[in-house]
Amino acid sequence: MNAQNDLHDLEVGYDVPAVPGMDEADIQTPCLILDLDALERNIKKMGDYAKAHGMRHRVHGKMHKSVDVAKLQEELGGAIGVCCQKVSEAEVFARGGIKDILVSNQVRDPLKLDRLAQLPKLGARTIVCVDDIDNVAELSAAAQKHGTEIECFVEIDCGAGRCGVTTTEAVVQIAQAIDAAENLKFTGIQAYQGAMQHLDTYEARKEKLDIAIAQVKAAVDGLKEVGLEPELVSGGGTGSYYFESNSGVYNELQCGSYAFMDADYGRILDKDGKRIDQGEWENALFILTSVMSHAKADKAICDAGLKAQSVDSGLPFIFGRDDVEYIKCSDEHGVISDPNGALKVNDKLRLVPGHCDPTCNVHDYYVGVRNGKVETLWPVSARGKAY
Amino acid sequence: MNAQNDLHDLEVGYDVPAVPGMDEADIQTPCLILDLDALERNIKKMGDYAKAHGMRHRVHGKMHKSVDVAKLQEELGGAIGVCCQKVSEAEVFARGGIKDILVSNQVRDPLKLDRLAQLPKLGARTIVCVDDIDNVAELSAAAQKHGTEIECFVEIDCGAGRCGVTTTEAVVQIAQAIDAAENLKFTGIQAYQGAMQHLDTYEARKEKLDIAIAQVKAAVDGLKEVGLEPELVSGGGTGSYYFESNSGVYNELQCGSYAFMDADYGRILDKDGKRIDQGEWENALFILTSVMSHAKADKAICDAGLKAQSVDSGLPFIFGRDDVEYIKCSDEHGVISDPNGALKVNDKLRLVPGHCDPTCNVHDYYVGVRNGKVETLWPVSARGKAY
Repeated sequence: MNAQNDLHDLEVGYDVPAVPGMDEADIQTPCLILDLDALERNIKKMGDYAKAHGMRHRVHGKMHKSVDVAKLQEELGGAIGVCCQKVSEAEVFARGGIKDILVSNQVRDPLKLDRLAQLPKLGARTIVCVDDIDNVAELSAAAQKHGTEIECFVEIDCGAGRCGVTTTEAVVQIAQAIDAAENLKFTGIQAYQGAMQHLDTYEARKEKLDIAIAQVKAAVDGLKEVGLEPELVSGGGTGSYYFESNSGVYNELQCGSYAFMDADYGRILDKDGKRIDQGEWENALFILTSVMSHAKADKAICDAGLKAQSVDSGLPFIFGRDDVEYIKCSDEHGVISDPNGALKVNDKLRLVPGHCDPTCNVHDYYVGVRNGKVETLWPVSARGKAY
Repeated sequence: MNAQNDLHDLEVGYDVPAVPGMDEADIQTPCLILDLDALERNIKKMGDYAKAHGMRHRVHGKMHKSVDVAKLQEELGGAIGVCCQKVSEAEVFARGGIKDILVSNQVRDPLKLDRLAQLPKLGARTIVCVDDIDNVAELSAAAQKHGTEIECFVEIDCGAGRCGVTTTEAVVQIAQAIDAAENLKFTGIQAYQGAMQHLDTYEARKEKLDIAIAQVKAAVDGLKEVGLEPELVSGGGTGSYYFESNSGVYNELQCGSYAFMDADYGRILDKDGKRIDQGEWENALFILTSVMSHAKADKAICDAGLKAQSVDSGLPFIFGRDDVEYIKCSDEHGVISDPNGALKVNDKLRLVPGHCDPTCNVHDYYVGVRNGKVETLWPVSARGKAY
C-alpha cells in the first residue's frame, strides 16, 4: 500500500484515474475499482480453505498482475507465493519481493531462458514447466551459465488441450531427464485442467476433474516406481479447487479469479446449484463507468468499451441493477439498454467484466475503495508483461 | 522517431520487447511489429487520395494511440491533425506536439471538462462533439474559467446508434446554443457512420452511407438557413472514405485503420469484389508470436493469447501461411492447427489481429521493422488513456 505516497503530485485524469482520499464519486472513468472489503473477504476465505485442507496456495498472479494484491494474498490468505505465465511477469513479482514463483508455462526462447535462469538471483525460488525433453538441456545450460538452480514441474495435459504431455511414460521420461541434468531439480507436476473451469454444473466439472485426477495419480505412481516421488503436485482453479483439495494427490492450488470474480466465473453453479458469485465468492472487481450520452430516450451510452475490458467471454453485467443492461460494445463506448430512462448523464455504474484476467491487463491501476472513499491506488505491476 | 535514444539501457524482455538494431529474429514475443515499408505506403496512399479529393485528413489517433505514428501521418500523409476519443488521449497528442485535435466524443464529467478546456494552452486547436444542449453551458463555463476557446462539432447519429442527435432540428438548436455561448465556437458537424464500416460489400456500405449523406446534407442546409454554415463536416472511415469524399458535403476524413489494417477490415470487399487487404491496403501491423510447445503432433501452441490482442472481432489469421491456422485462444496461449507438423518450437509467426484498435491498446510498444532489422521502437503513447 506504499503506492499511496507521492500520488498527489500526479494529475488525476492524465496520469492516474484517482488518488487516495478522493470521494468515489470523483474517480475518473472508465477504470478498475476494487471493493477492498470484498477482496479481503475473498482472500481470507480461500486462505482458510487451503489451510483447513492442508493445501499450499500458490495464487495465480497472471490474473491480477499486481505485486500489491499478491502480497495481500500472502498476508491475509497465507499464500506461499505465486504462479504466473511469463518470464517478464515473474521478474516483476520477484523484484516486488515474492519469494516462490512458478512460471506455469513453457520457456523456450533463448533470451527468455537466460532471464529465467537469473530469477533465483532476485531471491525467488524459481520453478518452470516442461513438456518436451529437448527443453531440459536448454534449461540446464541456462542455469549452469548463471550458477543457479531451476526447479521443474513436468506439465501434464489433463484435458485443457494446450501444453503438456499426456502419458505417464512421457512424464517419467522427462522427470528422469530433469533429475539427471545439472542445475535442475525435478520438483513436481503441473496439472491444471483449464478447459473445465467454466462448465456450468458442479457435476460436469467433477466428471472432467475425476479423469484428470486419475491421470495425475497414474503419473505420480509411475514416478514413485522410479524413485522420483514429486514434492509438489500443483493445479486447481476457482471452478475446481475442492476437487484437487480432496484428491489425495494434489498438494498445491493455483486459484486466481476467486479474489476478484467475473461474470464468466460468476455464472457457474456450486454443489447446491447456486451461482458462485451469490455466496461462495463476492464480486470485488468492477469497471467503473459513467454515462456520457443519453441522446436516445431508451439507450444510455457509457464510457467503457473495448479499451476498458476484454469481451472474449461475453459482455459485462451491471452490478446491482436489473433495470438496465449493457447490450453492446465498441472501442470506447458501451450501449446500455435503459427502457425506463432510469439513467442520466454522469451517472456511474459498476460493471462486472466478462473475464477478469485480460480485462485487468488493459488497465494501469486498481483503485481500491472502501466506504465511498479511495483508499489506495495499486499499479497493475506486470501489465503488458506478455513477453 | 526519437524513441531510438537511450533504449540500449533498457533490458530487452523485461522493459521492452526489442531495441533498434536487433535482428527481427531476436525480438521478444508476443509483441506488436510494424512493417515500416507497408505502413509508409499506406499512409502516403491515403494522404494522396485525400489531397486529390480536396479533403482534410484528420487521422484517427484512437486506433494507434501513438504520437510517432500521428507525426508520420502528418509528414508523409499530409494529415492536418488527429481525432481521438478521450481527453486523456488528447492530452498525450497535444503534449506530443499535435496542433489540431478533435475529441470525437462527448465530454460531460466535470474534471474532464476542466482538462479539455486547458488543451488549447498546450498549443492545440481543440474541438469536441456535442449531442446534448445541456453540455453547451458546461463547456462554455470550463472554457471561460481557463480563458480558452473550445470549438464544437454537433454530433449527428447517422446510423451508428451511439452518441449523436438524429434530427436537423436538434442539430440547429444545439449549433445556435454553441454560437451564442461565451468562449465556444460552432465549427461543424461530426457524422461518422461506424456501424457500416465492416459490411462486406461495397454496395451494402454505399446504401448506408447514402442515407447518412442525405441526413448530413439536410442538417447542413438547415444550418445554412440560420446563417451557421459549418466550416468542417467530418467523418469517414477505412470502409467508407470514398463515399464521404465524393459526397459534396463532407470536407474532412477521419480514417484510422487503413494505416495498420486488421483481419476484420481486411475481409471487406472493394468495388471490384476484392478484399481490401489484397490491393487497397497492406497489412502493416502484426502480432509477432513464437511457437512455445508442440507436445501434440497436429497442434502448435504459440505465446500470443488474450493478453496480446482483442478477439472481439474474431481470431487473428496467420500472415502468409495457409498450411497452419490459429484456431483457439486463452489468456496467454494460442492454439494453432498444424496438420502437417510444419511448425517447430521457437518458430515465429506474424498474426494479423482481428481488430487493430483494442489490440494496440494492450501493448506498450510498436517494434518497427525493415529488411529484417528492428529500426525503431515507438511507445503506444496513449495506451491505457481511457479516462
